[in-house]
Amino acid sequence: MILCDIGNTTYHFLINGKHKKYFLDEKVPKFDDEIYFVSVNEKATKKLLKKNSHAKNINKFLKFSTAYQGLGIDRAVACSFQDNCVIVDAGSAITVDIMEEGVHKGGFILLGLQRFKKSYPKISKKLKFDFEKNINLDKIPLRTFDAIQYAMLKSIILPIKEVSLNKNIIFTGGDGEFLSKYFENSTYKKDLIFENMKRIIDANNCIA
Amino acid sequence: MILCDIGNTTYHFLINGKHKKYFLDEKVPKFDDEIYFVSVNEKATKKLLKKNSHAKNINKFLKFSTAYQGLGIDRAVACSFQDNCVIVDAGSAITVDIMEEGVHKGGFILLGLQRFKKSYPKISKKLKFDFEKNINLDKIPLRTFDAIQYAMLKSIILPIKEVSLNKNIIFTGGDGEFLSKYFENSTYKKDLIFENMKRIIDANNCIA
Repeated sequence: MILCDIGNTTYHFLINGKHKKYFLDEKVPKFDDEIYFVSVNEKATKKLLKKNSHAKNINKFLKFSTAYQGLGIDRAVACSFQDNCVIVDAGSAITVDIMEEGVHKGGFILLGLQRFKKSYPKISKKLKFDFEKNINLDKIPLRTFDAIQYAMLKSIILPIKEVSLNKNIIFTGGDGEFLSKYFENSTYKKDLIFENMKRIIDANNCIA
Repeated sequence: MILCDIGNTTYHFLINGKHKKYFLDEKVPKFDDEIYFVSVNEKATKKLLKKNSHAKNINKFLKFSTAYQGLGIDRAVACSFQDNCVIVDAGSAITVDIMEEGVHKGGFILLGLQRFKKSYPKISKKLKFDFEKNINLDKIPLRTFDAIQYAMLKSIILPIKEVSLNKNIIFTGGDGEFLSKYFENSTYKKDLIFENMKRIIDANNCIA
């Protein structure tokens, strides 16, 4: 069984326990195995289905009720089976969702780390910088290089902190491991979406 | 006397008490009056001087000492004459500077409101939105439209809140008035930079 998470930037496959990513403009292979997928991107979904007409969209198996209008299926999958916590999927966007007693209370969408990095030089060439992963966030910056990275990280970290008081935070996504280090009450689950996809598939006895 | 603040996006003139802005790629007029300017943009400075060789850069009159390396002259001017406060210049970038007992303690650089707005649709067309100025920041969003604007405003507001506990905040710049409404301890000074430029010129008796 092959799993695939179609996002805004990549096809993310789990094939025999191994991760494989393709950018959306790359060629997608044809697979013989069964494929289950989640997708937030219609065009990319069509492209996958063109070569793999047997691929199954997991949305028909998912039971996730929320008052949130237009919640991405990847967020619904990530939040499934959670009781009380904040779920952060740090990809090209950073989605933050709040679960309380098994109920989805809403969420918000921060710019992803890469998008922040790309956006500063668009204001001025002087704000171009090479990201450094060891920025001191306890000290007010004293040079432009630090002033940007401090601000960028604070712009991401503080909104998450504000909604996660007394709650555990589960991080997933490409920048999830890096960001999780700024939070004491956090866990990083690289495969959160794939794990939940499997549970949804199992619960529906829909494995071939 | 004409004053001019050359930023990353515009020439901002004060002519006989009236504001006049030109984008950096527009033609700059030739003026007969005396001109004093601050600038963070060398290329734009040269363009101004080409037509107005009599224009005087205020940097030679400014006495502002700081441990911050590479502080933009506009930020130094905005922070001049301040004792204990946070100065926020909300333009294409949002600069945040902390003054304590007349000493500049450092600062940071957030993305400007316009840059945030432009950056979301670059992640996905689904994240395109028309900015609405009345977003409820006390409630976790329940639709994508609110989820983006909530996150964007929190990304700007919370880092400023964190450094301004027990301090007054002075807002200036194009989005300064709008942002100041989210802070109880704030003042909006549209002409902060021009007012301080005048004080610096006066203190140096350099008026023609």
